[in-house]
Amino acid sequence: MIEVFNYIDKNSSKFVEELKKICKQESISAKKRGIEECSELLVDMMKANGLKAEKVKEKGNPVVYGEIKGKREEYLLFYNHYDVQPVEPLNEWISEPFSAEVRDGRIFARGVADNKGNLMARLMAIKSILEVYGDLPIGIKFFVEGEEEIGSPNLKIYLEKMKDRLKADGCLWEGSDKDSKGNPQTYLGAKGILYLELRIKTAEVDQHSMYSTIIPNPAWKLVWLLNTLKDDKENILIEGFYEDVVEPTEEELKLLKDIEFDEEEYKRSFGLKEYLKRDLVRSLIFSPTCNISGIISGYTGEGSKTVNPSWAMAKIDFRLVPKQDPEDIIRKFKRHLEKKGFKDVIIISHGYYAPSKSSINSKIAKVTLETSKMVYGKPCKVLPLMPGAGPLCYFTDFLKLDVIGGESLGRPDSKIHAPNENILISDYLEAIKHVSAIIMNFK
Amino acid sequence: MIEVFNYIDKNSSKFVEELKKICKQESISAKKRGIEECSELLVDMMKANGLKAEKVKEKGNPVVYGEIKGKREEYLLFYNHYDVQPVEPLNEWISEPFSAEVRDGRIFARGVADNKGNLMARLMAIKSILEVYGDLPIGIKFFVEGEEEIGSPNLKIYLEKMKDRLKADGCLWEGSDKDSKGNPQTYLGAKGILYLELRIKTAEVDQHSMYSTIIPNPAWKLVWLLNTLKDDKENILIEGFYEDVVEPTEEELKLLKDIEFDEEEYKRSFGLKEYLKRDLVRSLIFSPTCNISGIISGYTGEGSKTVNPSWAMAKIDFRLVPKQDPEDIIRKFKRHLEKKGFKDVIIISHGYYAPSKSSINSKIAKVTLETSKMVYGKPCKVLPLMPGAGPLCYFTDFLKLDVIGGESLGRPDSKIHAPNENILISDYLEAIKHVSAIIMNFK
Repeated sequence: MIEVFNYIDKNSSKFVEELKKICKQESISAKKRGIEECSELLVDMMKANGLKAEKVKEKGNPVVYGEIKGKREEYLLFYNHYDVQPVEPLNEWISEPFSAEVRDGRIFARGVADNKGNLMARLMAIKSILEVYGDLPIGIKFFVEGEEEIGSPNLKIYLEKMKDRLKADGCLWEGSDKDSKGNPQTYLGAKGILYLELRIKTAEVDQHSMYSTIIPNPAWKLVWLLNTLKDDKENILIEGFYEDVVEPTEEELKLLKDIEFDEEEYKRSFGLKEYLKRDLVRSLIFSPTCNISGIISGYTGEGSKTVNPSWAMAKIDFRLVPKQDPEDIIRKFKRHLEKKGFKDVIIISHGYYAPSKSSINSKIAKVTLETSKMVYGKPCKVLPLMPGAGPLCYFTDFLKLDVIGGESLGRPDSKIHAPNENILISDYLEAIKHVSAIIMNFK
Repeated sequence: MIEVFNYIDKNSSKFVEELKKICKQESISAKKRGIEECSELLVDMMKANGLKAEKVKEKGNPVVYGEIKGKREEYLLFYNHYDVQPVEPLNEWISEPFSAEVRDGRIFARGVADNKGNLMARLMAIKSILEVYGDLPIGIKFFVEGEEEIGSPNLKIYLEKMKDRLKADGCLWEGSDKDSKGNPQTYLGAKGILYLELRIKTAEVDQHSMYSTIIPNPAWKLVWLLNTLKDDKENILIEGFYEDVVEPTEEELKLLKDIEFDEEEYKRSFGLKEYLKRDLVRSLIFSPTCNISGIISGYTGEGSKTVNPSWAMAKIDFRLVPKQDPEDIIRKFKRHLEKKGFKDVIIISHGYYAPSKSSINSKIAKVTLETSKMVYGKPCKVLPLMPGAGPLCYFTDFLKLDVIGGESLGRPDSKIHAPNENILISDYLEAIKHVSAIIMNFK
């Protein structure tokens, strides 16, 4: 193993160049920019590093599939994505988002932390082992999608099509971040999501608000509706909403004690006045949510305009925890509206997927935590669930794989989805080492 | 009287030209366009028609004051405004908004129905009497402001300054509209208004909505707050809100029976699904309101974005009925928020004024109704209050005048504040006759 680590240290600048190469290729799925070019570049890079690789095109942006056999008939599956978020606001970037400039030991580029850094760390890990030993102990399969940043709308289609090729003995998800103290972290699953838009329309045109004594106001209707969804103690009031929620196990609660959550740091960085009064780490990880992401009706410009609006809209996102089922939640939500007497509400679903959780005792989890010690001198910290959502469920439930977050790369200040996205080069090299160790020790 | 009416018929095209002249002069207070020019044109037109006139400048846009003595030492005060609403959306106008084009017996122009038509009808009435009889039986004073369309923010300042000059024996408000059946109407007062903006801010920046389990969401806070203001039976829940509301008198309720409200016509024109279940005419006129004119928070664009917003805002307009006092309502509103535990709510007032009501037995009311018979063959219908708000209170409460709406000019399809604002030329000529008759018969 030490030979591989030495090889990584000696070739660090070459590995940085490889990462810069893919970061310089834009690949914004929301704007359909550079998608084909980036997927082709990635196929070429995989081939150049010893893998068989191809573009798979079913619907939407292509998936890049890469594969290399190992000595044993076992496979690790790597999930990554080559697409990135839009770069706006462009004027806040110090260097061009696709210039991949190196400053102060960091690489700055859109996508470098999310998710090209992890993707390249994995590819460079394979290259390093091949260079040192000539072959891999186990096989590797890469599933790299191009629509993660737009909600993976076609992921299921690809998985159904590629089910046989994706057979494996464990899966590393796209990667993880260090915590605010620099400790490596990983996670055993993610929350599910359900995103609904509610529209209430009472008329074709806005009316002078003198008519508000006799014409229903959709903004009021929406307020009354929303008020029945959650009370001011943050209890979600949809009948049966919590019914399938699984309480965290003793083991999971033990893991929580280890998690760093720097209250003051987040307070400063968001300009927060206060947190909700609750066990923050536990809530962040185990609480399902019913959140207003957006609401609008009527006149919202400067000063005053007296209007009885003709329509009102709210966007509601639910984050679901094991074993909540998004389709069941939609049914309960509709039943709730019916029982509360809200008719004529148009409900638009902007997508959903289920929560997912793998066991800390799975083979892939064990090796990930064990090998962390070789690189960092300690096992990485483990979030039982990501506070955010991710479509891990397709891999756990459909492909029947154990999934874990994988190697840490970013940090809380990596500015994912924001201007000046960056990673530390030293974190990148450690990530290559961690992935190498996972591959070498998977058994 | 018949001589005056004949004179008006004979000079109709000249009167249309005079109206077109002032309609061609733009005077948009919200955009500060043409204000000085229009006020000067108006001074000139008053002088050309036998009045002493001048611009009075205290604060904001100037007031045009005009005066002419009569045989008796009595004065009627006319309140009007020379400013108009913005013209947008411009592409929906068939002819230019300041071209004053005549089509199908109508004049189309921004401001022709609100309020330049009434202003000119009054000036042409004076001219007609002077031409026929050489003098007026009573004196007339014009108070024509230039900020009505932006909420009359400086009206009180002008009235305080001009209090002595504005002494009179009755006041015609800016004018009234015919109902949907073409019946002339007037009103004895108007609702008051109080327009508040509520802002709740919980952070400096929006956060990823995975944090919604631990960080307060201002949109939820706003929903819970608004929900305490009005219930889904349309009851306003602010303690003491209805305390000072005066029940309509028997006489007022009798007036209501006469009011035309074409339910189906309004339903069609607004594209309404339904009305609130209540006595529509009575509610329209006598119910105070608590209306959401606008609400916004978070992401309101296409599709989905998961965000815990940093701020939320609602615009609330109250329409107040006699004897509700806007300053008292603000106090009650603040006390309500305090009692309900809503702290850190920023309350911005965008202005307010009290409701106002004059007696149907006042001199000016009696003569207005009586003379209606001479022009229309029947007394005009009388709304005890306008469903909308207007700053009549300053004239009734501060200047101690009896006020009535005045002559009808527009109709429900006059498109006030909208593209293709228009009046019927025949309605304009009838309005001149009605004002002439009011002046001749005021005693």
